[in-house]
Amino acid sequence: MKLLEQRIAREGKILPGNIVKVDGFLNHRVDTVLLREMARDFKAHFGGKAIDLIMTCEASGIAIATVAAEEFGVPMLFVKKAKSSNLGGDVFTSEIQSYTYGKTVTLTCSKNWLHEGDRVLIIDDFMARGEAMRGVIDIIAQAKAELVGIGIAIEKGFQGGGDKLRASGVDCYSLAIIEEAGESGICFRE
Amino acid sequence: MKLLEQRIAREGKILPGNIVKVDGFLNHRVDTVLLREMARDFKAHFGGKAIDLIMTCEASGIAIATVAAEEFGVPMLFVKKAKSSNLGGDVFTSEIQSYTYGKTVTLTCSKNWLHEGDRVLIIDDFMARGEAMRGVIDIIAQAKAELVGIGIAIEKGFQGGGDKLRASGVDCYSLAIIEEAGESGICFRE
Repeated sequence: MKLLEQRIAREGKILPGNIVKVDGFLNHRVDTVLLREMARDFKAHFGGKAIDLIMTCEASGIAIATVAAEEFGVPMLFVKKAKSSNLGGDVFTSEIQSYTYGKTVTLTCSKNWLHEGDRVLIIDDFMARGEAMRGVIDIIAQAKAELVGIGIAIEKGFQGGGDKLRASGVDCYSLAIIEEAGESGICFRE
Repeated sequence: MKLLEQRIAREGKILPGNIVKVDGFLNHRVDTVLLREMARDFKAHFGGKAIDLIMTCEASGIAIATVAAEEFGVPMLFVKKAKSSNLGGDVFTSEIQSYTYGKTVTLTCSKNWLHEGDRVLIIDDFMARGEAMRGVIDIIAQAKAELVGIGIAIEKGFQGGGDKLRASGVDCYSLAIIEEAGESGICFRE
């Protein structure tokens, strides 16, 4: 998606550890005009498939997943990262390694809202090694729901998570794939 | 807002500790059709005021704040609760007590995206004692930005946070105010 690539090239900052900082429009301050365009692009790619539910991972995936869910006309379910006293006992859980926060995180999802046969599209703002995706996919499998595809705003191609999913047969569609992020700038996959 | 009150009455569950669980449509699985109606109601109340930015608190406020920001045509900025390696050093912080998670939480907001004179509307999904609001208001004051008002989806009136804010002169507008939640059901403020 050219619009997103241009925005990343113009405003994205590269931090040590190959972190691409886009907190001015995607994951701290959020540009809702851009979000709507991104959601429409996801709809153009996945719109031909039957989808019952959009899932994402708290926290920064919630904004784009909400707008995408409205675009698809389905509910959005976000997997929780912290243990909340509000969820109750009957939950699916999956452990992932968070590189951003430098610790193991337990993803949690109530069994009330994810059921056998549900056709699920995962939408998230970022993918690097694909750890969060692995956790959400694990939860979808536990529920015997069906993973229809994965839509990512920004994939860090050089960290391999997206290509591993594609190799396993998942329809993983990213709006922008960063191949290189270094001193010389940001290069996108063609 | 009748539509929201009806939904709470029909689907909300009361847990020990006066917790009203609405995770089927607001803060775990999210009904985006309802969210859009709620955002329009906020627009009807606050639409006459000049607003530059909508702020909320991660995580569950992000969904309604995103849709509201789109309705107002302004960016949405969400204050972070966990220390992320992505934010960098130049931040506003404020400590709050989280009753949901039973611990002290440091709210964090980059100085890059909140400036002196910004007219800010806070939107959040829930208010009880108003602790999260206190933190966000503190951050707005640190930035010398201007608090235009606060829009809340569900206020737990019996916990006093909203009334305290109104008494201090804040335009605090809640779509549903729960006065009582107990064995006999849920009562709303007229």
